[in-house]
Amino acid sequence: MQRYFVNSPLQAGRPIQVSGDIYHHMVHVMRRQLDDQVELVDPDEEVFLAKITKIENSAKFVTLSVLKQLPGQSELPVHITIGCGLSKGDKAEKIVEKGTELGADAFWFFPVRYSVARWEGKKINHKLKRLRKVAQEAAEQSHRTHLPKVDYFASLKDLPDADYTARLVAYEESAKEGEHAVLKQTLNTLKPGAHLVTLFGPEGGFTPAEVTQLVDQQKYVAAGLGPRILRAETAPLYLLSVASYVYEL
Amino acid sequence: MQRYFVNSPLQAGRPIQVSGDIYHHMVHVMRRQLDDQVELVDPDEEVFLAKITKIENSAKFVTLSVLKQLPGQSELPVHITIGCGLSKGDKAEKIVEKGTELGADAFWFFPVRYSVARWEGKKINHKLKRLRKVAQEAAEQSHRTHLPKVDYFASLKDLPDADYTARLVAYEESAKEGEHAVLKQTLNTLKPGAHLVTLFGPEGGFTPAEVTQLVDQQKYVAAGLGPRILRAETAPLYLLSVASYVYEL
Repeated sequence: MQRYFVNSPLQAGRPIQVSGDIYHHMVHVMRRQLDDQVELVDPDEEVFLAKITKIENSAKFVTLSVLKQLPGQSELPVHITIGCGLSKGDKAEKIVEKGTELGADAFWFFPVRYSVARWEGKKINHKLKRLRKVAQEAAEQSHRTHLPKVDYFASLKDLPDADYTARLVAYEESAKEGEHAVLKQTLNTLKPGAHLVTLFGPEGGFTPAEVTQLVDQQKYVAAGLGPRILRAETAPLYLLSVASYVYEL
Repeated sequence: MQRYFVNSPLQAGRPIQVSGDIYHHMVHVMRRQLDDQVELVDPDEEVFLAKITKIENSAKFVTLSVLKQLPGQSELPVHITIGCGLSKGDKAEKIVEKGTELGADAFWFFPVRYSVARWEGKKINHKLKRLRKVAQEAAEQSHRTHLPKVDYFASLKDLPDADYTARLVAYEESAKEGEHAVLKQTLNTLKPGAHLVTLFGPEGGFTPAEVTQLVDQQKYVAAGLGPRILRAETAPLYLLSVASYVYEL
């Protein structure tokens, strides 16, 4: 069933009105009609079954009756933030789309030495707005209850320094040297509710100096991601899939 | 270092000539010059270091001196065939590109009930040619030694029926029912050299009748792939990543 994220808390029995993108998607894309049912997720990540009771095409809103709360267990028990050096083309969109499907908690983007792309001035907000829309659509499509945040930071040094449980930086040189133990050990020690941040380089990877800075000054641990060389947009998907195996299968 | 798949067996000390796409990529894309080194992989999946000794731009070939054999250990120990119902747009290309990076042994494509796309007549060979090129480029880029095969079959009933060690069909309904054990159990029982075939539906998934046919008549076992609903092109990448974790980390 189609799922939508709404901005206000829901309660069974209380009607809700939706407008904007949700109205458009419900009425014009999915062609929903009176009495059709959808799933709504509120800001508390609670899922509800709702039924369309009124479609106002002139004022462009839909009124729904909130029927009942549904069980919603589709979130990775460990929160994983995916941090990516800016890559070329639409790779950021692919990372957010697939990463959201695979359970990422949040996404960070930042320029590094080998980033060809640059986000500057108005482009930053434009990009973030687009990526947040991609995250929302992917979260709805994959039946997530958590809507991943997407943020931009001006450099590695500006990355948030909260009380994360573990921090990894995916490093191709570690992988080439056959270092595959750090990832496995890290995943196996994290408990439900833990927060793992993992950073990924752009096409050319991180420079040795960037990795040294992250390790020496920002508490990251370098980790290889298996024996094959993965593209910038594939490596985060590998990490998230592997985490799902460890925590969910 | 850039890697190329060549068609003839290599031996250290014996020169080799390359032409066609490899010539074009070496000289015009990578702008390689005399004495530059590249890696070559031969049909026996052996990797060699080679040095450019002659560039013939009029006749469009490059001669290389084969210097020495290199260790090549980047293949998943279990052979995994990814079989996909035809999806819309360029999803087949994405599956082959990312699936090759993640270690797939072979790809099958076939139409099923919910396939919107159809490959017919000349389009089949055109598509396969394109997908084989995508596989080759991804295999070179990710430093594989095995070049995955790509094949098309006219229906589920036409899929090869060789002596596979295990056969799975990814089924959303299994995932919804919380069935996550089959995938883990299957991966954990396979030994190096085993051959796992896994089938994935298109956007709408397989029909219940298709799954029944696969299970009852073609020896497949239905398996869920975790609690989130994955897009047609994401599910194979999840399987391959998880297999890498089990066998390589």
